Amino acid sequence: MPMDILLKEILSIQGVSGDEAKICRFLVEYVLQRSSSWKVTPKLYFGEKFHENIVLVFGKPRTVAFAHMDTVGFTVRYENQLVPVGGPELDESAFLIGEDAQGIIRCKAELRDGNIFHDFPRAIQRGTSLSFEQHIYEDDGFIEAAYLDNRIGVYNLLKLCETLEDGIIVFSTYEEHGGGAMPFLIKFIYENWGIRQALISDVTWVTDGVGFNKGVVVSMRDRYIPRKVYLNRILELADKSGIPYQLEVEAHGSSDGREIQLSPYPMDWCFIGAPEENAHSHREKVAYFDLECMIKMYQYLMCNL
Amino acid sequence: MPMDILLKEILSIQGVSGDEAKICRFLVEYVLQRSSSWKVTPKLYFGEKFHENIVLVFGKPRTVAFAHMDTVGFTVRYENQLVPVGGPELDESAFLIGEDAQGIIRCKAELRDGNIFHDFPRAIQRGTSLSFEQHIYEDDGFIEAAYLDNRIGVYNLLKLCETLEDGIIVFSTYEEHGGGAMPFLIKFIYENWGIRQALISDVTWVTDGVGFNKGVVVSMRDRYIPRKVYLNRILELADKSGIPYQLEVEAHGSSDGREIQLSPYPMDWCFIGAPEENAHSHREKVAYFDLECMIKMYQYLMCNL
Amino acid sequence: MPMDILLKEILSIQGVSGDEAKICRFLVEYVLQRSSSWKVTPKLYFGEKFHENIVLVFGKPRTVAFAHMDTVGFTVRYENQLVPVGGPELDESAFLIGEDAQGIIRCKAELRDGNIFHDFPRAIQRGTSLSFEQHIYEDDGFIEAAYLDNRIGVYNLLKLCETLEDGIIVFSTYEEHGGGAMPFLIKFIYENWGIRQALISDVTWVTDGVGFNKGVVVSMRDRYIPRKVYLNRILELADKSGIPYQLEVEAHGSSDGREIQLSPYPMDWCFIGAPEENAHSHREKVAYFDLECMIKMYQYLMCNL
Repeated sequence: MPMDILLKEILSIQGVSGDEAKICRFLVEYVLQRSSSWKVTPKLYFGEKFHENIVLVFGKPRTVAFAHMDTVGFTVRYENQLVPVGGPELDESAFLIGEDAQGIIRCKAELRDGNIFHDFPRAIQRGTSLSFEQHIYEDDGFIEAAYLDNRIGVYNLLKLCETLEDGIIVFSTYEEHGGGAMPFLIKFIYENWGIRQALISDVTWVTDGVGFNKGVVVSMRDRYIPRKVYLNRILELADKSGIPYQLEVEAHGSSDGREIQLSPYPMDWCFIGAPEENAHSHREKVAYFDLECMIKMYQYLMCNL
Repeated sequence: MPMDILLKEILSIQGVSGDEAKICRFLVEYVLQRSSSWKVTPKLYFGEKFHENIVLVFGKPRTVAFAHMDTVGFTVRYENQLVPVGGPELDESAFLIGEDAQGIIRCKAELRDGNIFHDFPRAIQRGTSLSFEQHIYEDDGFIEAAYLDNRIGVYNLLKLCETLEDGIIVFSTYEEHGGGAMPFLIKFIYENWGIRQALISDVTWVTDGVGFNKGVVVSMRDRYIPRKVYLNRILELADKSGIPYQLEVEAHGSSDGREIQLSPYPMDWCFIGAPEENAHSHREKVAYFDLECMIKMYQYLMCNL
Repeated sequence: MPMDILLKEILSIQGVSGDEAKICRFLVEYVLQRSSSWKVTPKLYFGEKFHENIVLVFGKPRTVAFAHMDTVGFTVRYENQLVPVGGPELDESAFLIGEDAQGIIRCKAELRDGNIFHDFPRAIQRGTSLSFEQHIYEDDGFIEAAYLDNRIGVYNLLKLCETLEDGIIVFSTYEEHGGGAMPFLIKFIYENWGIRQALISDVTWVTDGVGFNKGVVVSMRDRYIPRKVYLNRILELADKSGIPYQLEVEAHGSSDGREIQLSPYPMDWCFIGAPEENAHSHREKVAYFDLECMIKMYQYLMCNL
């Protein structure tokens, strides 16, 4: 699986939580250009009433798949300080980039006395978003890059769009920093289409029970616990599909699934995604084989669930 | 008050958060068998659109009482590890039980280097739920058993059903692990019956201000604070009732009341329940006298509030 | 800006979270007496279905401004212990006041072995609310008093009422202790008037980037991050207004904006308020100049946003 130009494109666009306008615009334009060539042309919902979220409705949907488009990063504070957005892994060798009214910014950051400082030669405007400069490496069946969390999940759903007949695809915001877009999206989807089945298209961690090149991960729980009855249906289908997958059981971490769990709608959720190393760093790492399995599993489940 | 066969039955059924299908099925069957002999036969709501939650509507309801049916436990991870569900108190002498595709499981667990390991001689399937083996002891006016939290609260409401004329009874899920069922239930109840008064039927802790055999506990606050105006109305009625009760004021802990507090409906809530020792262990302890007072207080309040 | 009698009045009324009946009654009476002399007489919503919250609707609203009326304080526990409400700064020289069935209470409190004890000569009824005794000092352009958080925000909106043509003003409860009133208020406001623009009228902290007498603070983020697109519109207007303002970027702290962020409505929010020192103490300190700028900024933004 050589890297798709589309994956490269979405990896090149910044979108720190709360500041997703650029990646949103790219995705809307991509959908507008491509959707007429898809098996089914979806109805597209976006714009000010959706903030930077995007909803695509194909045919007669039974299941919704969510992928968040935002990434971790930093907000510029005072006195050359930076405040984290989400939980970025600070590596003093990594470059951070951004832009304020005075121009382009490229700098490094370091931790001193519990505060993070940038080394840009001039003051940067308060509130400016910075995130990792992108460098993509491909080697030996792996991709290493910033923002794989969660441009992998976004890419997976964009591939799914090409063949999807019935279902809803959502590109959401704010996942990395406290959430807040999902409650609106869940309400919109449940109230309009009565959807009670959800999948979370995102990346998870390589651990002692989850490894590279063993297939897509189906998570049985993280900090939150999906409903056993729903999980069992998914596992039955996953077995039937013949697609390689591995089971995850974690005590920590969470995803957009959390907000479905806490929503006032009887919507089930399950996290399904590729595992990665170096999460939230400028050099996240995913195996292409796992990504391929992820894409196939979503195609299978959206069709059969 | 000798132990009721019904209390014994519901104490014998497992129902770890997220995996409540069995206890849900028992409760539905119990209601279907018994409700025609109750003073008022309620309308029963359950099934896939309610997940494992159950709602009973009696007459013209003014007040809703909630009891969660789930318990703490463990999820099986990898390499013989267990991950907690809720906050179980691990006692290395306690047996844990469960079942996977290969059969019945009975094992002990111990904490080593910050991880919990089971000692079952074979690997257990990932994601399997385990919880305490049940042993019920009765002695000197006390009951000791696993799952008193919150089968005591469930039992209280099942007894209430026998004489209730107007009110809503809810058996809910997921309370021990992050919640998530309550938002849906509150919405359903408020939007259909406009209910603005709630009681939480659950167990609390023996502390320096709350003791055994002093009556049911009315909680003035825990981590969350119910509205004073509502609390005052309940205390006025509790005084009038003549039923022994004690007042609780805590900084920590919370209940399904938390989700009512945070819901988008102007619904008041108050926690009322028996105190217990050894919370979340395999040997929780409650005094029958306090349980009797709890049952009487719910009968009084559901009638007079 | 000499102290307004109105500010003095609302500073003299207690309203610990959950126990806001008195301050609510004062505000309702004030509105009923004054609103006919305002530029536009608003429609007033309050009463049992609103708990202690108050909503005023002026003309054709596009934007809503929220100010919480509750304050930090303490709940009386057992054995002369106190439990905090919100995060009050305990100063052993400060007097706490309250009232129970036996009469007026005035005492001090001290921290011993991690617990807070009052020194009142008799037991105080469980569940009684205590809060700081009020002493107002004016000096050199500053006001020092208890409850400036958030009677400053309430005062700001009461002044705004006098000239407001189109907009919604909300006085809310429970902000200092876990929230829970906002979800209902947001739902009410969005579903009835479709409002998607919100301002949070509250006080923030003096820090290394935010100082006294530099104007009202527009917060670019705290623990939660408002949407950049909305923030940019506000900053553009703030620039145009000519009113002195300063920009805040914090990693911690939050406001009623948090609950808008997490609500299921596409409503934007931005925190705008005066900075203070000695937050949550009996001697909070605010500069009149910053308060003046706050009042002017709200008048400008509610008109132009």
